[in-house]
Amino acid sequence: MPVFKHITFLTDFGVQDDYAGVCRGVMKRIAPDAQIINITHGIGPMAVTEGALMMRRAIPYMPVGVHLAVVDPGVGGARRAVAIRTHAGRLFVGPDNGLLTLAAPVEEIEAARHLTNERYHLEHVSRTFHARDVFAPVAAHLAVGVELDELGDEIDPATLVCIDLPQATVSPGGIRAQVLIVDRFGNLQLNVTRDHIAEFGAEPGDRVELRFELDPFYAVVAETYEQANRGGLMVYEDSHGSFAIAISGGDASALTGAGPGDDVRIGRAYD
Amino acid sequence: MPVFKHITFLTDFGVQDDYAGVCRGVMKRIAPDAQIINITHGIGPMAVTEGALMMRRAIPYMPVGVHLAVVDPGVGGARRAVAIRTHAGRLFVGPDNGLLTLAAPVEEIEAARHLTNERYHLEHVSRTFHARDVFAPVAAHLAVGVELDELGDEIDPATLVCIDLPQATVSPGGIRAQVLIVDRFGNLQLNVTRDHIAEFGAEPGDRVELRFELDPFYAVVAETYEQANRGGLMVYEDSHGSFAIAISGGDASALTGAGPGDDVRIGRAYD
Amino acid sequence: MPVFKHITFLTDFGVQDDYAGVCRGVMKRIAPDAQIINITHGIGPMAVTEGALMMRRAIPYMPVGVHLAVVDPGVGGARRAVAIRTHAGRLFVGPDNGLLTLAAPVEEIEAARHLTNERYHLEHVSRTFHARDVFAPVAAHLAVGVELDELGDEIDPATLVCIDLPQATVSPGGIRAQVLIVDRFGNLQLNVTRDHIAEFGAEPGDRVELRFELDPFYAVVAETYEQANRGGLMVYEDSHGSFAIAISGGDASALTGAGPGDDVRIGRAYD
Repeated sequence: MPVFKHITFLTDFGVQDDYAGVCRGVMKRIAPDAQIINITHGIGPMAVTEGALMMRRAIPYMPVGVHLAVVDPGVGGARRAVAIRTHAGRLFVGPDNGLLTLAAPVEEIEAARHLTNERYHLEHVSRTFHARDVFAPVAAHLAVGVELDELGDEIDPATLVCIDLPQATVSPGGIRAQVLIVDRFGNLQLNVTRDHIAEFGAEPGDRVELRFELDPFYAVVAETYEQANRGGLMVYEDSHGSFAIAISGGDASALTGAGPGDDVRIGRAYD
Repeated sequence: MPVFKHITFLTDFGVQDDYAGVCRGVMKRIAPDAQIINITHGIGPMAVTEGALMMRRAIPYMPVGVHLAVVDPGVGGARRAVAIRTHAGRLFVGPDNGLLTLAAPVEEIEAARHLTNERYHLEHVSRTFHARDVFAPVAAHLAVGVELDELGDEIDPATLVCIDLPQATVSPGGIRAQVLIVDRFGNLQLNVTRDHIAEFGAEPGDRVELRFELDPFYAVVAETYEQANRGGLMVYEDSHGSFAIAISGGDASALTGAGPGDDVRIGRAYD
Repeated sequence: MPVFKHITFLTDFGVQDDYAGVCRGVMKRIAPDAQIINITHGIGPMAVTEGALMMRRAIPYMPVGVHLAVVDPGVGGARRAVAIRTHAGRLFVGPDNGLLTLAAPVEEIEAARHLTNERYHLEHVSRTFHARDVFAPVAAHLAVGVELDELGDEIDPATLVCIDLPQATVSPGGIRAQVLIVDRFGNLQLNVTRDHIAEFGAEPGDRVELRFELDPFYAVVAETYEQANRGGLMVYEDSHGSFAIAISGGDASALTGAGPGDDVRIGRAYD
């Protein structure tokens, strides 16, 4: 049996091609008894920040084990390939571009290694598919008991790339926020927390104005989809503790045209 | 080893987000040795009837085990969360909105429970993601041997929500039918059985008229894709014993513009 | 434990429907301990050549085991259902339409069988879903130790259908090539090898002209994404040893409008 039973796997490879499947094959050749948990392969192409956000919210629900993540626009270039062990015993593998460090922030890191030891890579390493040739084999070797220290040169965790997320701000006029993620239901996850909403002073049942660019939309602050009018916009605390914009029974992204990175101002609605 | 080796899993979560992946992680933390069989996560957003139809046709091909299904527009509202045991020993988990009861109709149900026992939920239950917080943990606990009776209050199976599917009707003028499901090939699955076709009196090789709204289309009744002209519409008994409309080597949904819920009249073609 | 621990699985079923999921269920009923490695289910509908190309490049990375592949426009017609054993001990199962024979070319085949023995099929075999009714059960029976010879009549490997891929040609004016596969990143994989590029005489850093139909595009020959200008076209040796056209940080298919099967001429760029 492998030392770690589970390898979680997240990429931007999509489900059209064989890229994620080939990585699964590579892992199963090295760690035939490891079980792969696909978190998602639907991260937007090259969308490192989106991948990092998904890792941050998904990893706490995963068994402690090996966590492979690849969204890697800099593959073959200067970015480092890394493996990280946290104090909680989780092992992260991926590119050093910020993808891992929202889920594994520096204060939780026990040790990190630059994946320079080619012994744990495939024999032939391409320039453009390190997921297959470097990251997947390293993840599988970790699952079967290879020590982190064997993987390559030590890295000071403080030198790992971190992503600066935009921060929402509250003023008397409202909350200036950003859309972080749009999901398949068209829900817009914002960088807005319960504290922002409290500071702004909105309560369930209140109507608010949402201004993306020019046109304003009106939404109700709600706790469940059922509390909003069917077809109407709502602002609610989502299942990850962030606030989000949704339409009960509809697609808020399609209605508003908003996508990841867009600004939104949440203000008071004066009827 | 778990009591049930397999947990099947169907949702409308799509493959873009981490929702299905997070549920897999939750199940693996509770039941590390259970194997998850993903039936599909491609049910249309909130399309409860489509999900129920897919469950009905997929479950007979699945190993007896735990069957988790979540298409849940009423999450956080008044709908019940339930678990069901059939006389065949299958265990279904999901929302009480009709999603489960085409696959597990009332006459096949041995016992049902309302998932009121929070001991088998995650510690923090959100208002909008019960798949993660309630249904996945309950499914995993069932897989490792928790008894149905421990999950919560007993439910009279007769009170479970059922979906009324539209029924096709045959008259001298033809068959009035509805499109139930459109698949990725653009095939239109109808609520038409061999009995309807026999009553109407069509035989393989016959030409029929298909009328969706105004414009008529012409199709051949066929038994295999090869029997139809390449590029021409065909009506055939599909692999689930329902009749369907397809184009050999093409996309019938794109040609006709028809989708789930649309009416179609199958009539005689007078050349 | 099964004789073969792993069954790889590739289809054009997509992720919207339950087709791949139902096949997984069928396999798990017969071979509960076999592990299924999904290579991809994103092959274009009925795109046999694309499926064959993906099998050829993916299989070398898979554990030796059973390899199920289904892209089957001729289902229910005259095409044979087959199983193949290679000298390397791999077992392929699928339709005899060329899907398997790029990954398992005739010179590597030890034995092949026509799947005529109904004992290893489902009890009821439909006319349009042999993946579920024939191929998946046969793959699972092979995984648990059924011998190839039991599956049906012997086939002369030389009679298996092979796909003739278009061949690139080099002349003083340039390379006439074809697009084989377009991936989710919009990268265009060509039937161009290092030898073609050498014969043409291009070096990293050279600018070349790409002519799809009328409009010319200009690209740089590069070794990594970082070597190309962000947003500019590049021609590079991809991770499978073929040359491909990409845009660093962009979508080459969207820019050029090119898709599988399209011709492209790579010529010299005169500034």
